[in-house]
Order: sequence, then C-alpha cells, then structure tokens
Amino acid sequence: MSANREIASLGEFRFECGESIPELDVAYETYGEFDGDNCVLVCHALTGSAHVAGSFREGSSDQASAWWEDIVGPGKAIDTAEYYVVCANVPGSCYGSSGPASENPETGEPYGPDFPPVTVGDWTRAQRALLDHLGVGRLHAVVGGSVGGMNALDWAARYPDDVRRVAPVAAAGRLDAQCLGLDAIARRAITTDPHWQGGEYYGGPEPDDGLALARQLGHMMYLSKASMERKFGRRSAGRDAHREAFPADPAADFFPYRDVESYLDYQARKFVDRFDANSYLYLTRAMDDYDLAAGYESDADALAAFAGEALLMSFTGDWHFTVAQSERLAEAFRATGEIAHHVVESDHGHDAFLVEPGKVGPPLADFLEDGLAGKSITDTEEDAEDHGDFAPVHASLFPR
Amino acid sequence: MSANREIASLGEFRFECGESIPELDVAYETYGEFDGDNCVLVCHALTGSAHVAGSFREGSSDQASAWWEDIVGPGKAIDTAEYYVVCANVPGSCYGSSGPASENPETGEPYGPDFPPVTVGDWTRAQRALLDHLGVGRLHAVVGGSVGGMNALDWAARYPDDVRRVAPVAAAGRLDAQCLGLDAIARRAITTDPHWQGGEYYGGPEPDDGLALARQLGHMMYLSKASMERKFGRRSAGRDAHREAFPADPAADFFPYRDVESYLDYQARKFVDRFDANSYLYLTRAMDDYDLAAGYESDADALAAFAGEALLMSFTGDWHFTVAQSERLAEAFRATGEIAHHVVESDHGHDAFLVEPGKVGPPLADFLEDGLAGKSITDTEEDAEDHGDFAPVHASLFPR
Repeated sequence: MSANREIASLGEFRFECGESIPELDVAYETYGEFDGDNCVLVCHALTGSAHVAGSFREGSSDQASAWWEDIVGPGKAIDTAEYYVVCANVPGSCYGSSGPASENPETGEPYGPDFPPVTVGDWTRAQRALLDHLGVGRLHAVVGGSVGGMNALDWAARYPDDVRRVAPVAAAGRLDAQCLGLDAIARRAITTDPHWQGGEYYGGPEPDDGLALARQLGHMMYLSKASMERKFGRRSAGRDAHREAFPADPAADFFPYRDVESYLDYQARKFVDRFDANSYLYLTRAMDDYDLAAGYESDADALAAFAGEALLMSFTGDWHFTVAQSERLAEAFRATGEIAHHVVESDHGHDAFLVEPGKVGPPLADFLEDGLAGKSITDTEEDAEDHGDFAPVHASLFPR
Repeated sequence: MSANREIASLGEFRFECGESIPELDVAYETYGEFDGDNCVLVCHALTGSAHVAGSFREGSSDQASAWWEDIVGPGKAIDTAEYYVVCANVPGSCYGSSGPASENPETGEPYGPDFPPVTVGDWTRAQRALLDHLGVGRLHAVVGGSVGGMNALDWAARYPDDVRRVAPVAAAGRLDAQCLGLDAIARRAITTDPHWQGGEYYGGPEPDDGLALARQLGHMMYLSKASMERKFGRRSAGRDAHREAFPADPAADFFPYRDVESYLDYQARKFVDRFDANSYLYLTRAMDDYDLAAGYESDADALAAFAGEALLMSFTGDWHFTVAQSERLAEAFRATGEIAHHVVESDHGHDAFLVEPGKVGPPLADFLEDGLAGKSITDTEEDAEDHGDFAPVHASLFPR
C-alpha cells in the first residue's frame, strides 16, 4: 500500500485561547491519489496518531500499529484505491505535531506547560490549514471516532460548506459529568506524580506512574461491564505473572494477581513508553471542553448551516459515548439536515468502533459511496417502528 | 439516644491467612437493651466505622457523623427501642479496631504492612468473638450494606445456626471484573505514591495524594451516570472555587474548574484526614477477595445450611453492586430457603442505600418485625408476573 508520511510546517498559528506559536508543525499521512474531489479526512481518537492505516513505518515513536487498519486501505471500507485519505496528528499531541514536548524556538527547550492550551477547534483549524497546504478545498467526507468524532462534528459546524459528508463514530456533542469526573481524576494522577514537576520534567525522570494510572482509567472507560466480565472475570493471571510495574506490600501476596489487573498493568507499561504526560493533560482538557453548542443557541443551531449528509454511528455497550448521546445529536441534525443514526449492537464498550470492523465497515463504506442511500445504513427513526420505542436499545448497557 | 462506645480486647486472633496477632481490639457501639433474643448486628461498608447511629461523640478520629442515622435509632427502621443493635469496626480498618496503623506490641511501632492480610471471613469471625464477649448467642438479624452486605452473607454461610434473619443491602456474592479493575487502580494510586514507602510511612508524610485518588475513584463507583449528570452536569464550580488540593499547570487555567471536579476534590480532602491508606489497601483487598462460593460447590451450596429468612435489597441505578448480581444471589437462596429480593427504583447509584432511607427503611423495618411476611417487602419472583420479564428492571442502568 502506498502511503506518505510528512510533517508540514504551517507557520505562525494562533490558538483559540489567543496565544500563538511561531511555527506549527502538523504530522500527517496520506493514502491514495487526490483527484480534486475525493479527499476523506480521518480524525484520530485521544491518543492516536496520523498513522491510521498501512504498514508504513520508520522507527519512529509512533503507535506500533496503524489504529484503523481494518477500516482504511485498498478495497476496505474507506477505500484508498478510491479516496485520497488524509489523517493528521492533532496539535497538543506527541506524534510529530507541535505539542508540549516540542521545542520552543524561543528557548531551545521543550515548551512544557508554556505550550498554549489546545481545543478541538484548534485541531479543526490546523487541519484546515494543512489541507490548504495540500491544495484540498472541499472534502468529500470527514470521518472520526471518539473525540475524533467531536473533531468531525466541529468541521460540520465550523466549515459547513467544506464538508459533503460527515461521519462521527462513537461520539457525542459533549462529555457527560461521569466522564468529566474520570478525566479529572486521570489528570490529577499525572499532576500529583512528583516527577511531573509542574510539567517541566523533560530531560529528567518522567511522571510514568501518574500517566500509567491515567491510561488505566482510560481503559476502564473503553470497555463495558459485560466485555470485562467475559474477557477477565475473576480469573487469576497465573503463577508466572507478577506485579512488576510498581511496589506492593507483603500482605498483597496473599491475594491473587488477577487477569484484569495484569491487563491494566500491561497496557499502562506499553502506554508510558509511547505517550507524553503533558500531551495527555492537554488532549483530555480539549475533549472535556468540547461542546458543540458553545457559541450557539443549541446543537441544532450549531449545525444549521451544514447542508451535507451526516451518518452517526453508536454502540449499545458504550458508556463513554452513549447511544443516547448520539441520538440527541441525531435530533439536532434532523432539525435542518439529512441524517441517519446507525446503532450497532455490541457489548465491546467504546472500543467497539476499533474492534468491530465487520459492523463498522459496511455502513461507512456505503455512506462514502452513496450517502444516506447506502444500503447497509439503518436509522433509529425507521427502527422506532420496528422496536416500538428507542429506549430498549440504549437501556441495554451494563446488562449484568 | 443511649449509646455505648467501647473497645473490646479479645486476645490472640488467628486470621484466615494463618498469621496471628497477640491481641485483637474491636471497637464497637451498642444501642438499646439486650433481652436475650433481640440482637441485630449491623455491618458497615468499606470505609465505615462502628458509629452507625446517634450523636454520641468524643473528639475521636471517627467519621464525623453516624453513617446510617436515618435508619438506626429509636422509632426508626432498625428500632433501637426494640432491638439491641451492635455495630463493630472491622479488623484491618482504622477506627479503633486492630489494623495496619495499630501498635505492634512486639515492636512498639505501627504494624504497617506486617499486619496480617484480612478477609471478610476474618471480619465475621471477629464479630462472632465480640458477640461471645457480650454474651450474645443467636442473632435476631444481621444487616449490612455494600461490602457490609458481603459480611452479612458470610454470617449466613459461616454461622447459619446463629442467624434468624439476614439482610444484605446493595451487595453481591462477589465483585465483577469491572469493579476489580477499578479497585486495583485505586490501590496502585496509593502504592505508587512515594510517601507510601512500602507501607512504612507512619510518623512521616503520608501518601495523601494516592489515597485521595483512590477515594475519588470510589466516589465514581458510588454514583450513577444519571445522578452525576443531575448533580453536576458540566457546570463550572464558580470563581470562588480553586484547584487547591494539588498542583496544576498554567494551561489548566484556561479551562473551567467544574462542579464535578470540585466535588471530587472536596471529598478527597475530607477522606485523607480521616482514613489510613494501608487500611484502604487491606479492606479493598478483602472486598475483592470475597466470593460466597469459595470453598463450596456454588452459592446455593454455601447457603444450603442457612434455615433462616433472607431479604436482599438492590437499587436500579447501582452499577457497583447490580440488581442482576442480587438476583443471582436470590436464586441461590431460593434453592433451599426463604427469600425475597426487593428492588428499589432509584438512580442514586450505589449510594442509594445510604441516601434513600425512605425507600430502604420500610422493607427493612417490616423484615425485622415480621420476616418475609412484612407488608412493604416485594420480591422479584412476584414482580415477574406484573412486568413480564425481569430484564427491564436491571437493564435500566446507565440510562443516559
């Protein structure tokens, strides 16, 4: 598969907060050929990178594998033989785009906490600047998962004339109080790690323990009660597994080291090797802050200027971005536009958008090809007749 | 209200792990008068104390207010004018009973991590020893909430002839993988706090940051998505509220300090002043380890020798100890005994057993007075006829 990995230097960038940096770098990858009208922008989730597909690697600090390789590629749902696919690492992240770990040209040191606060709106504006740089005007589609779906939503609200089709997957118009609370705890885990040092830790020991806790909390949000019960239950991790990642007291050895704990520790170890703690603070704040209706009278008002088609996809086992939240978003789209809300039955939790390509791919492929006329697309408005009421679908969370 | 607060020194105590301590202290309170047949043992939740009711205080380090004062007292659901109520702080805790913060008589220093690992079975056995000391043989009832409900269950399994009626409230036969995961993260937050020092922190700075994180995670488990949305939403905590509890970087100031974060920080500050970090490790391990069926062929087998009556109460918004878990427990009781499973409609989450006395009190009062013939007691088996299927009740969690 042909892929290009580049870093675009886009000059001075003024963030929504009012602060500027003299040079914004945006790391991006492209797949396929641009024919003037076939660009699909893919927006990554919280800790993702521009590396959405393909095996194109060059010993970087990127994620080890492409994050949506079952969805994006030649002959796949987002078909790189047909579309010119662009994916860009968001500002504030740590995979090649400017962020807290990047060098501040004024000091020659990493920005650290002096990097300007970042919003989802800044991500969209940086992507717009990148596409200008690439010579792409109107987009055939913007597709994004999780907070990447918020990013896609922001495109429809901010640049309504630039987007033909938008597909927010496992997304919402805003986070709810429960997720805001968990994110606040995750950030506190980082900022109370003594190695964090107010964000000025570069060159010294890093706040790995705090970042590990934050990541473990993230994983709790990505899985459902049912998927965790099936995947781990109360099983012990076995004799060969040890609590290696952090100290424990003698009394702990009386009790089993369970599969679920071993999984969380393994995920934490992998994550601290690849992600920057300050970026985790910056990006979760952007996600928490995002509110589709901010600056408008309502979600519907924010979307009123968007005349394209929208496909929302949500997952029955997802309690991070719920089916009910997507349905409220669908109602806002329906006020003025063309929209389908496709609900996927899955108890994989929020991770379903990544691990259920067989269910995510067909409606997405059909939407890119035929818009809302796509055959495999369903809509909750039509479903309502069959099921009597919508409630049973989104009430099926946490079934155990 | 007449109340007695005492500490009983019960001599050498051998824990289930095989280790012993030379002198087990058990702090307890009693209410009402013993008539030989009217003792009700109340079992506290994870971070509770013996101080279940009344305003009896003496400048101790106990919880500031009685934890079930709306339920226990003269004329209340657990009527201290009628029953002799006993509540004991569990071994491993820090409210007067022996635990990691207690003095090890061999060294004159706190036990710290040398305190033996503690199980729910040890709690029950210590309570049995305390009741022997008080001259109480058979109990009229054992009532407990949350892990205190597991403690009550253990009474029915371990001393079936000693219990006339048992009422586990918002409890389960065992934790599921999701709760085991969250508890593991909470413990890791404590053990990665550099002040924890392998548990040997007494006399120096204490691992307050880690304990604060653990407590905040606990609060997430005690509330429901719906109750958090109603209580906090996305509201800002206002200009007068500040992030005082821990450091933050300058970029954080661009974003609001939200109600939900302010609540979690406030709860954390209160908690670290009153609780011991090692006790939090010990007690969550006991809870995680508890499995009604351990040592038996099944839950039903564990309960087979219990010939008394059982009332299970569960709450529709509780995702820590779910209605479905209580229903499975009810099925185990039904195999051999007299049981009702009373489901309370509430979206207050796990906290409902504490904050919904108007719904918890009547069935509990009737059960103590009349057993399962109590008028306000409902049972899921009877409900099944009305509602067609039980599923809608316990599927209504996380409704948003």
